[in-house]
Amino acid sequence: MPRYAFLVEYDGGPFCGWQRQADGQVSVQGLLEAALARLDPALPVVAAAGRTDAGVHATGQVAHADLSRDWDPFRLQGALNHHLRPAPVAVLAVALVDAEFHARFSALERRYRFRLLCRRAPATHDRGRVWQVSHPLNAGAMRAGAAHLIGLHDFTTFRAAMCQAKSPVKSLDEIRITEVAVPMGTELRIDLRARSFLHNQVRSIVGTLERVGAGAWAPDDVGRALQARDRAACGPVCPPQGLYLTGVRYPQEPFPAAPAP
Amino acid sequence: MPRYAFLVEYDGGPFCGWQRQADGQVSVQGLLEAALARLDPALPVVAAAGRTDAGVHATGQVAHADLSRDWDPFRLQGALNHHLRPAPVAVLAVALVDAEFHARFSALERRYRFRLLCRRAPATHDRGRVWQVSHPLNAGAMRAGAAHLIGLHDFTTFRAAMCQAKSPVKSLDEIRITEVAVPMGTELRIDLRARSFLHNQVRSIVGTLERVGAGAWAPDDVGRALQARDRAACGPVCPPQGLYLTGVRYPQEPFPAAPAP
Repeated sequence: MPRYAFLVEYDGGPFCGWQRQADGQVSVQGLLEAALARLDPALPVVAAAGRTDAGVHATGQVAHADLSRDWDPFRLQGALNHHLRPAPVAVLAVALVDAEFHARFSALERRYRFRLLCRRAPATHDRGRVWQVSHPLNAGAMRAGAAHLIGLHDFTTFRAAMCQAKSPVKSLDEIRITEVAVPMGTELRIDLRARSFLHNQVRSIVGTLERVGAGAWAPDDVGRALQARDRAACGPVCPPQGLYLTGVRYPQEPFPAAPAP
Repeated sequence: MPRYAFLVEYDGGPFCGWQRQADGQVSVQGLLEAALARLDPALPVVAAAGRTDAGVHATGQVAHADLSRDWDPFRLQGALNHHLRPAPVAVLAVALVDAEFHARFSALERRYRFRLLCRRAPATHDRGRVWQVSHPLNAGAMRAGAAHLIGLHDFTTFRAAMCQAKSPVKSLDEIRITEVAVPMGTELRIDLRARSFLHNQVRSIVGTLERVGAGAWAPDDVGRALQARDRAACGPVCPPQGLYLTGVRYPQEPFPAAPAP
């Protein structure tokens, strides 16, 4: 059975998350499997690089499935997008991959972006797409706090109680914080990069860094929280709607580059 | 009566446009006047720099109204945003202005941006916020076509039949086309700048330039269409959902700069 990889973008707002649930809630995985079921009687199962939570978005999710017959990737993309309408889920690219490729287990690196809007007036166009706070944030202090988290650490403080990972020890390769001017405010873009993340790790880190930016925590408090290896030492977990899975890296990039403009 | 200026942002999707309509459709002007009516028994009337059409967005609309009493601008902003909820309309700033200030007649320049997404896969996060085409566009050809429109011209070809402006002669100061990479596609940002625009002028220009980008029109055809001074010579008028009023310039900038991040 040929294996196909899918580059997937979605607005997480209407969904219970990536993962199909037994209780009939609408999931991105469930929608993709329903679209594939219209094309393949074998009812293919889809696996993804990142099992995003309810409300979390993706611009670069990667998934794969085994189909019963060969497809032209371009035609398969068009057929899937046709059957996904009108849900805010789009297949950006399709590629035939080796049987050894696994969207989750072959991944070398995941990239997430968190969008944090600092503005007094409420968001209009970006409602549901950013986390908004109405106080200013000190991005320099947040960068100093984030520096404590880079490298190989026991991230027990920054993972959900329900996290199923075998070990809380992970290497966090980068946290980059960029300030972007928006009308009468600032958007902080927090880009994180790691081989893999623990459950709620990004939202626990961003929620803690927000406290540093607001001045409620000192940057060094982040290091002390990490060393505590205690979930209770974490700052508040921030809401999901600012979080985007932006990309996944593999030993061989499965998708052709976007067509030149 | 003190006069206040408002910097206003909105998602145009749910509205019949800026202007209050007699038939009870929901307009941005109507919502702002309803919010002001909660604060001021004199039922203030609001005038705006640009009377945007149905579906057109704003990130920098400017409006003004006369109120019966003095307000702290910061408190007035908060009260208006409170009463505007949950509509996707936000007052970004409020300023006390001279009685001579008029949001529409004092404006020296309007700026619009049109977002044109070139991608095969449908938009997810930006649905309703861009005009999408699934074919590639040649931005260089579009820039060459746009060059014919810069300067003082009779824009009869590029204005709606129902346009109420006294003269079709306008000066178009700039059309800048920027290509931005998006996942598996390109977004063209078309920024236009003029003292004032005719009804449907931006959408008529963008729809025509899209034909140039697609190769259906040569760049010089834009100059011939302009010289025809005939509405029938225009390309197709593009849809409104990619259009944003991004800013208005006045002899004196009414609003304080955004707080430093």
